[in-house]
Amino acid sequence: MLDYKLLQALATVVEFGGFERAGEQLGLSQSAVSQRIKALEVRLGQPVLIRHPALRPTPAGQRLLNHVQQVQLLERDLRAALPTLEEASPRLRIVLNADSLATWWAVAVGDFCRTEGLLLDMVVEDQDVGLKRLRDGEVAACLCASDQPIAGARCVPLGTMVYHPFATPDYIARHFPDGPTVEAFRRAPAIVYGPHDQLQHRFLASCGYHGSFPYHLCPSSEGFVRLTVAGMGYGMLPQMQVASLVAEGRLDSIAPERSLAVPLYWHFWRHSGELLERLTGVLCGVRLE
Amino acid sequence: MLDYKLLQALATVVEFGGFERAGEQLGLSQSAVSQRIKALEVRLGQPVLIRHPALRPTPAGQRLLNHVQQVQLLERDLRAALPTLEEASPRLRIVLNADSLATWWAVAVGDFCRTEGLLLDMVVEDQDVGLKRLRDGEVAACLCASDQPIAGARCVPLGTMVYHPFATPDYIARHFPDGPTVEAFRRAPAIVYGPHDQLQHRFLASCGYHGSFPYHLCPSSEGFVRLTVAGMGYGMLPQMQVASLVAEGRLDSIAPERSLAVPLYWHFWRHSGELLERLTGVLCGVRLE
Repeated sequence: MLDYKLLQALATVVEFGGFERAGEQLGLSQSAVSQRIKALEVRLGQPVLIRHPALRPTPAGQRLLNHVQQVQLLERDLRAALPTLEEASPRLRIVLNADSLATWWAVAVGDFCRTEGLLLDMVVEDQDVGLKRLRDGEVAACLCASDQPIAGARCVPLGTMVYHPFATPDYIARHFPDGPTVEAFRRAPAIVYGPHDQLQHRFLASCGYHGSFPYHLCPSSEGFVRLTVAGMGYGMLPQMQVASLVAEGRLDSIAPERSLAVPLYWHFWRHSGELLERLTGVLCGVRLE
Repeated sequence: MLDYKLLQALATVVEFGGFERAGEQLGLSQSAVSQRIKALEVRLGQPVLIRHPALRPTPAGQRLLNHVQQVQLLERDLRAALPTLEEASPRLRIVLNADSLATWWAVAVGDFCRTEGLLLDMVVEDQDVGLKRLRDGEVAACLCASDQPIAGARCVPLGTMVYHPFATPDYIARHFPDGPTVEAFRRAPAIVYGPHDQLQHRFLASCGYHGSFPYHLCPSSEGFVRLTVAGMGYGMLPQMQVASLVAEGRLDSIAPERSLAVPLYWHFWRHSGELLERLTGVLCGVRLE
């Protein structure tokens, strides 16, 4: 068997971002934590941590972290079968898209986490980075718009989120007096989540517009809504996130017939125990409307 | 004078995350963009971009980007004085904390951006990374909780955001039936924004509790609220973000007398032109209540 004291030290250093904090967490001195990491590196014959510029695992370190998390998940199943074993509650690391976390995610998984005593370590990334982190074994599951399968993982479709180009009525009157025209698109400030966010571009392309346009960059789902409501721009927002603002007449679509449906897929490791299977069952029951 | 065509190519490659997209933006072929970057590197005698694993500027490249942004800001002032010059609308890159972006930021700056035709490139980081990016010249300003001055930048206090340990009434009845006790803190799942978020630890320390506690990690302001409302945990939330949920009785404080006030400071480059000075004037008029 591997020496899990060493692996736990590695997992704790990475989770808490440093040797001192990991020591506090484990009830060890910083130097004891450091010795465990060194012992692990000696046994492995290569480094498990990159120290500079930021502390992060090497590819080999990530493989070990992947393994630690899988073992912790299997331990959970064991503890369910043998309830007198000492209790522990590993955090399940999941990468997901910002808009799901800002909308339906908590309602969908809240009861399950409560019942199972499950803690989540949520990571927000776009789909390419998210799938890479799943492939690298950094996370146990990835919720994203890509159906590209990952070796060793299963992929199940969860439905779609529907986006509309929303803005305030004032903004629409000022910038789109003649509707969604090429001239309006060229001048009206938009809001884009980040450099890899293609929704705004896809919307404009669906309207036949392929030129440049002014936009704010706002990498926050809630901030995106706030900017839109403050009249700073128009942007592609999930219908479900702003339903009440639309009902109150504070937001409206600049092109009601132009919506984009973004599919969501749940990728997760095979053979990681029953907990992930049951969580998957819960997610498959979600209605994204 | 520097060759600004080359500098603009660098800025566009970094902003759009690739040579192909930068080319689309500039109306150039990918190979023309690549040639401009190479020409810049030859003149500088060192690389300006790191290609792997992700495209990002070298420290020298960042200095150049800093300079480009300062020049663009100064050009804005020039254009205000000479309105017949061809118009351009540079994005002002600002790093700020997630909770400000999720609450008061858009209302505070919305009118100003509209009037000035100003576009923002917002970056969400915690204060240490944010101040580092300001120091490195990656951003023009940083909104954070630290009053640590940066050479070449001014720092003005904007007020404080007040945080309370909120949860649903059901959650409080289940996990804190006897109030905020040591035994309850040891078992009740909390919600923490990320490994560097110290608010929960500061709250527990203020209650005299220094032990470990179970928690979810949720790096999203809106997700944090959703998890709390779904009863998954209790967490330190800005009073202003959840005022309506508190008024509706959906959230309550687990320890009403224990709030934490987090100060906010606005750090910005000196000598970057009038636009930043005027934006600073707008921010100084904000009341964070």
